[in-house]
Amino acid sequence: MSKAPSSSVTSSPAASSAANSMWGGRFAQAPADQMLKINASIDVDKRMYREDITASQAHARMLAKVGILTAEESAQIITGLSQVLSEIEAGQFEFKIELEDIHMNVESRLKAIIGDVAGKLHTARSRNDQVVTDFRLWLRGALGSLDAALESFIAVLDQRVAEHRATAMPGFTHLQVAQPVTFGLHLDAYKQMMLRDRARLADCAKRVNENPLGACALAGTSFPIDRALTAAELGFARPMPNTMDAVSARDFVLEFLAAGSILSVHLSRLAEEIILWMSQPFAFIKLPDAYTTGSSIMPQKKNADAAELVRGKSGGVTGRLMQMLMTIKGLPLTYNKDMQDDKAATFEVYDTLALCLAAMEGMIAGLTVNTARMAEVAEDGYATATELADWLVVQLGLPFREAHHVTGRIVKMAEAKGCRLSQLALADMQAVEPRINQGIFEVLSVEAALRRRGLTG
Amino acid sequence: MSKAPSSSVTSSPAASSAANSMWGGRFAQAPADQMLKINASIDVDKRMYREDITASQAHARMLAKVGILTAEESAQIITGLSQVLSEIEAGQFEFKIELEDIHMNVESRLKAIIGDVAGKLHTARSRNDQVVTDFRLWLRGALGSLDAALESFIAVLDQRVAEHRATAMPGFTHLQVAQPVTFGLHLDAYKQMMLRDRARLADCAKRVNENPLGACALAGTSFPIDRALTAAELGFARPMPNTMDAVSARDFVLEFLAAGSILSVHLSRLAEEIILWMSQPFAFIKLPDAYTTGSSIMPQKKNADAAELVRGKSGGVTGRLMQMLMTIKGLPLTYNKDMQDDKAATFEVYDTLALCLAAMEGMIAGLTVNTARMAEVAEDGYATATELADWLVVQLGLPFREAHHVTGRIVKMAEAKGCRLSQLALADMQAVEPRINQGIFEVLSVEAALRRRGLTG
Amino acid sequence: MSKAPSSSVTSSPAASSAANSMWGGRFAQAPADQMLKINASIDVDKRMYREDITASQAHARMLAKVGILTAEESAQIITGLSQVLSEIEAGQFEFKIELEDIHMNVESRLKAIIGDVAGKLHTARSRNDQVVTDFRLWLRGALGSLDAALESFIAVLDQRVAEHRATAMPGFTHLQVAQPVTFGLHLDAYKQMMLRDRARLADCAKRVNENPLGACALAGTSFPIDRALTAAELGFARPMPNTMDAVSARDFVLEFLAAGSILSVHLSRLAEEIILWMSQPFAFIKLPDAYTTGSSIMPQKKNADAAELVRGKSGGVTGRLMQMLMTIKGLPLTYNKDMQDDKAATFEVYDTLALCLAAMEGMIAGLTVNTARMAEVAEDGYATATELADWLVVQLGLPFREAHHVTGRIVKMAEAKGCRLSQLALADMQAVEPRINQGIFEVLSVEAALRRRGLTG
Amino acid sequence: MSKAPSSSVTSSPAASSAANSMWGGRFAQAPADQMLKINASIDVDKRMYREDITASQAHARMLAKVGILTAEESAQIITGLSQVLSEIEAGQFEFKIELEDIHMNVESRLKAIIGDVAGKLHTARSRNDQVVTDFRLWLRGALGSLDAALESFIAVLDQRVAEHRATAMPGFTHLQVAQPVTFGLHLDAYKQMMLRDRARLADCAKRVNENPLGACALAGTSFPIDRALTAAELGFARPMPNTMDAVSARDFVLEFLAAGSILSVHLSRLAEEIILWMSQPFAFIKLPDAYTTGSSIMPQKKNADAAELVRGKSGGVTGRLMQMLMTIKGLPLTYNKDMQDDKAATFEVYDTLALCLAAMEGMIAGLTVNTARMAEVAEDGYATATELADWLVVQLGLPFREAHHVTGRIVKMAEAKGCRLSQLALADMQAVEPRINQGIFEVLSVEAALRRRGLTG
Repeated sequence: MSKAPSSSVTSSPAASSAANSMWGGRFAQAPADQMLKINASIDVDKRMYREDITASQAHARMLAKVGILTAEESAQIITGLSQVLSEIEAGQFEFKIELEDIHMNVESRLKAIIGDVAGKLHTARSRNDQVVTDFRLWLRGALGSLDAALESFIAVLDQRVAEHRATAMPGFTHLQVAQPVTFGLHLDAYKQMMLRDRARLADCAKRVNENPLGACALAGTSFPIDRALTAAELGFARPMPNTMDAVSARDFVLEFLAAGSILSVHLSRLAEEIILWMSQPFAFIKLPDAYTTGSSIMPQKKNADAAELVRGKSGGVTGRLMQMLMTIKGLPLTYNKDMQDDKAATFEVYDTLALCLAAMEGMIAGLTVNTARMAEVAEDGYATATELADWLVVQLGLPFREAHHVTGRIVKMAEAKGCRLSQLALADMQAVEPRINQGIFEVLSVEAALRRRGLTG
Repeated sequence: MSKAPSSSVTSSPAASSAANSMWGGRFAQAPADQMLKINASIDVDKRMYREDITASQAHARMLAKVGILTAEESAQIITGLSQVLSEIEAGQFEFKIELEDIHMNVESRLKAIIGDVAGKLHTARSRNDQVVTDFRLWLRGALGSLDAALESFIAVLDQRVAEHRATAMPGFTHLQVAQPVTFGLHLDAYKQMMLRDRARLADCAKRVNENPLGACALAGTSFPIDRALTAAELGFARPMPNTMDAVSARDFVLEFLAAGSILSVHLSRLAEEIILWMSQPFAFIKLPDAYTTGSSIMPQKKNADAAELVRGKSGGVTGRLMQMLMTIKGLPLTYNKDMQDDKAATFEVYDTLALCLAAMEGMIAGLTVNTARMAEVAEDGYATATELADWLVVQLGLPFREAHHVTGRIVKMAEAKGCRLSQLALADMQAVEPRINQGIFEVLSVEAALRRRGLTG
Repeated sequence: MSKAPSSSVTSSPAASSAANSMWGGRFAQAPADQMLKINASIDVDKRMYREDITASQAHARMLAKVGILTAEESAQIITGLSQVLSEIEAGQFEFKIELEDIHMNVESRLKAIIGDVAGKLHTARSRNDQVVTDFRLWLRGALGSLDAALESFIAVLDQRVAEHRATAMPGFTHLQVAQPVTFGLHLDAYKQMMLRDRARLADCAKRVNENPLGACALAGTSFPIDRALTAAELGFARPMPNTMDAVSARDFVLEFLAAGSILSVHLSRLAEEIILWMSQPFAFIKLPDAYTTGSSIMPQKKNADAAELVRGKSGGVTGRLMQMLMTIKGLPLTYNKDMQDDKAATFEVYDTLALCLAAMEGMIAGLTVNTARMAEVAEDGYATATELADWLVVQLGLPFREAHHVTGRIVKMAEAKGCRLSQLALADMQAVEPRINQGIFEVLSVEAALRRRGLTG
Repeated sequence: MSKAPSSSVTSSPAASSAANSMWGGRFAQAPADQMLKINASIDVDKRMYREDITASQAHARMLAKVGILTAEESAQIITGLSQVLSEIEAGQFEFKIELEDIHMNVESRLKAIIGDVAGKLHTARSRNDQVVTDFRLWLRGALGSLDAALESFIAVLDQRVAEHRATAMPGFTHLQVAQPVTFGLHLDAYKQMMLRDRARLADCAKRVNENPLGACALAGTSFPIDRALTAAELGFARPMPNTMDAVSARDFVLEFLAAGSILSVHLSRLAEEIILWMSQPFAFIKLPDAYTTGSSIMPQKKNADAAELVRGKSGGVTGRLMQMLMTIKGLPLTYNKDMQDDKAATFEVYDTLALCLAAMEGMIAGLTVNTARMAEVAEDGYATATELADWLVVQLGLPFREAHHVTGRIVKMAEAKGCRLSQLALADMQAVEPRINQGIFEVLSVEAALRRRGLTG
């Protein structure tokens, strides 16, 4: 999602008194320097400037509708907020650390623009419901972007699957050659994972898209507000029914981080395979130069850096999930400041996923396949031994377990002779099981194996 | 979910040769002792004995239907499997570590009962699709049990919410008294979380309930099997479309562990509150003796052990999620032995969640509320300061920000005098803001604050 | 540790070709945009600019000593590097994303200053050993800073311990009042933890302080370099004996993150207690205004935000540990690009720990103790019941288990009467155990309990 | 470490009343069934039976020495405890769930054997210090066993390193062929990691080996006990100075789990390499049959299951670390029941590490190396390109950066011709850089590259 333009965050000598005045008349002492540093979130939450302003405008409109603000006051506030938005987007806004967060930065600037009436905007709301409203709006947008990124990646997978429907490759279990498959089938497996990841994120979006605004600090308000109105205005499915839950629930964040972790683990598996396939002993694929890097010392190197980074970043995403599960663990209701770190974690995970999906799409779209090498490894790895066993079952009526034993002995023989199964003489096989006949050769090639399973494109 | 009856697992001197014979004629050497120990899963996966037998029976029925087995063979196998089931449930089954897993233990016993025809059961399947079929069936059942446990717990919450709809208590933010709420509203917040947890587990169940059977090792089979038939027979929504995905996907496990972690974190929050409320300085509630324990040295102690354990166990559940994300990370397709630990992790998480939900339901059902103490803390904590500020906005037309400052000064005054807001003299408040009048006293009590928000039951 | 001055990172239209030229003549295509973004580390690793330059100067000096560079070449390089350092520290250095990392940014600027001889600096080294040399130097410095921070915090703890050696407070187990302790004893427990944390970080520092320089890409070099010399020059204890290990080992990072996680969990415990003690029902302490914040809506609030943030940030630190364990898991030797994220994780953890220690030191130094409230809770909580039991053992010769039962009954009686143990009549106690005599009252007060344990300052 | 013999844990109808009587006279109600299940730890902590008895005997001896017990009472207790030990080791002991834990099970049996004097054993101690004393003793023993396992594994590594000091293999970075190394150097890198792991566990052991006994519940005792005496008797370095710290510190557990996680991640890297090396495209090594398994369907398979399990189990170990960091996070002093899960986590991690080390030692000892294949991949991968570049620097005086570019172009040429660097004609190379002469061929073979680095055994 959009990042705040590069307006920098500054801290002035008068920082402390500004912070104090924000909380009213009960503070005798300015915040300690360490306090200011550990407490401020503006560096992170300024990214939600647009959502903050949109939500405030919806709030102002509602306040007018129910008669808490006059139409004129509301209009002033809404116009003033639009000006703040323009200033931020133009990079002309100065974020101040002593104003702690995006909410106070925006409101403070609003006051400078429209005067004291700005102070009426915060009627019947609290930063506790304001921040989580902004955050839900932001995450809804981010989920939309990820959905589009997944759709685009799935389309690329589809294309490569279609292209390689009949490209033979060795299928592996335990990284040992198992049975022949096709490169199309292999890539399609990742498509299935991506489809489920998309569904998981969509399920998460349902639980994100509820309106906490109006919960105020935790207990709602005695002002006659209309929460259905702000919900409608902001596109939320409904107001959250419990005000204490509205300000303290963070399971929507945990669910996003969890779905993101699963997605990133899926990407790490594909990344691992790209790295393997690029390695000289495999030599199954080549990545375009645009997705590899070289070495500062070894001039022959083409490294699949992008794939390695995608593989590694599943650690970073999972780490953020662990962070937030641990942070929320054991917190009493309602809002606790520990929760503040939910935004940095979520933003980082979103950025990582978006970047990883784009990089993976680029790699899959651009890779070229060494079909000869793939076929060669499939042929050399006794990948059709299961076909042989199945033939023994169907043609000779052996129980599968016995067919399995017979085949094992034939593989051992081929291994000893250093040849493929299809290169054994009939007599050799008959030495193990006399009833084997010429028909056996119809199932021993990779091509036959694929054909018999319908993997022919 | 059901556990296997206490038939014990044994290991015989001939263990190694048994293991070898299972994989056929290509192994010259018996497994090392360490190998046997690290490799065997029977101790864990025997818990899926019923699912294994059910799935095998469906498979046998299908094999007959498509003509791979005769009707008689199929019947023999199905009856034999039923006998194995009876033996296990009667505790008369001897699980053998050298047979590695539940699949081989069952099949081996089947062979002893019905003879060589047992060997035909494994036609057109592999342990790779067999194990994940069993596992999906088991987890589907477990999700059903958790759904019922959540339903039951939610009913208890509902009851206590109804009972305490108007029971005043201090609402906290940052563990500081914030505004008056009711104990009903507080408990209802947990009900909301449980409702979302239930929805999350239901979403997970959709992705669990798909049929991997027939994917065989990874590449399907050339036998003319009917996967829709086994799907229907086993109650799965559909066959999984990609065979490589079917045997290697474990996101259904990750999603369950993630949803379980979120649920356990929710329970940890409620547990923390129970512990706080039980602590002498709070003294908000009492747990029944049935949910507390004493001390071996301090005779006066009544500890909320069950709540502490529930709080702590969110760590155990999350740890299992971390385990499986890390285990699956970077694994190439398709099946890798690393995945084997998915079952121990899942079983433990299910058991933990089931136990924690039951314990929490018992605690919530049994706790008694010290309403006087709750009300006292609410009154003493200046919890109605926000009401005062709102009154200044509504009655005197102050912008909220200014009202906030005025109120801050009045609180400071009450603090200095050591009295409640409602105990201040009108003149005192007028010294801060001269326009304040007698009407102010209508909003300063906890009861008034609750009434004005409609929190009156 | 020092951060790079605010010289910003830029990206030019010609970015791609610059990147290509870095890896030499084998790349036909410019990096994709996504590749550039996911691959570049300059935003993060520029923080090690000083270590990079120091290590390069040591390398140049060594190259001259063994005759690979002339004295003049070496001098030119060293002087040129000093100029680069000055430019960075003056904020006049332009970091370029297309130059990927701090190493290439520095070398590229060096070349602009001193010409082609700059190209000789990279003789007999690789970025693989260069980056980990920089990183170990940086972490050594960071560990030094944390050691000083811990020393300072321990001194503050010592001071408060001395001050409150005899301040009675209720000791808790299970958050239930258990036995009387002193506030000094309580704080001293944290001192013990900090001492062990310090020892753990010192043990980690031993394993950080080894020299990887000269391992080159992975296999050392055929140039006649002197690794002991660069080790001595850079203050490393010794050259790492295995070159492959030198470039791929990251356990020094994992160990730091682990020790940091344990430290942060310790701080989270103290933070939790500060939050509890600040809560109105406890009211044991007050934090100075400089470490609390207010509310935008509730004018009476003083929140222990800093403590909450410290508590929560243990999640962030642990998350980074999980990230790196997961990232390193399963990586083959030697360098893999996944490892690149080790620096962002480490820098964040260091910053967090430094900030949390400073904030905690400030809170502990500034908090004021409500000794009356502490004593009151200790007296009210039957905290001296164990004293009573011990008295029964010593004076009446009861086995401890029996004394425990007798005491339990007496506590129950006091509870029923709503009084303290010391307020029971002798006759009441004798009704439970007739042999109890007047002497019992010598052990029932908190003060007596402390005195009998030597907790009197 | 030793496991308790198979005496089973039973639960009787009278379970609840037994539990109640343990905590004395203040409990009116029996524990709920759920409570009993979630609370009992005997299934887990019975593993510490020997440590529990040893510590109790030391305690009894000390109590006599300081005059709290008579010599006769002490002797009776010590002899009785020895009998309990014998019964447990003979498998004749019935563990009871209603007695909660190992401490109460042992004491209850002691009372049955020696009568009421058994009740005096618990004088001046609590289960809070007792359990952590047992646990520290157990972990000290476990650390000793792991140290021996590491020593043994390192010896095997040493042997294989010596054997393969000069066996050429391709060294990889980014899983791309980088430079020639030897198999000995590669294995030696793991030896270095194991040496550091051993050192880390030894550092941990220092912090484990301190005496918490005598801290009692949290506040020590007014009995005149001698903690130095029990420390000496039990082999602890010293009594822990702060009683509250003694019962609530669990950083010794966290440190063990962290050091174990790092070790397990190291093993996962070696496991990954074994799996790669076993894969047909690599074909670098063969594992003995004793460490592989076959397939139930594919008769040709030999899977490196043990290596896969070792790789995966790093997830399980790390998950337990995550669990305990999260569990301890935010816990106030002193003992909280959440901590109870520390033992199951620690026992599992110890068992896993011991098994993984044994399996890895077996695999490394038994693997056979396909030296021809290793050499072939090294020759085919342009692994000597860096040698070429170095030659250009030394012989022609090119700056390294220029030499790197020249070499890149030569590699590209060889790639186009499909030959090795050493198979290029001199004229070809001179077309790129005319000054290249015949001497170049002295550095282009793998053997020459190894010799020039001294990697010749």
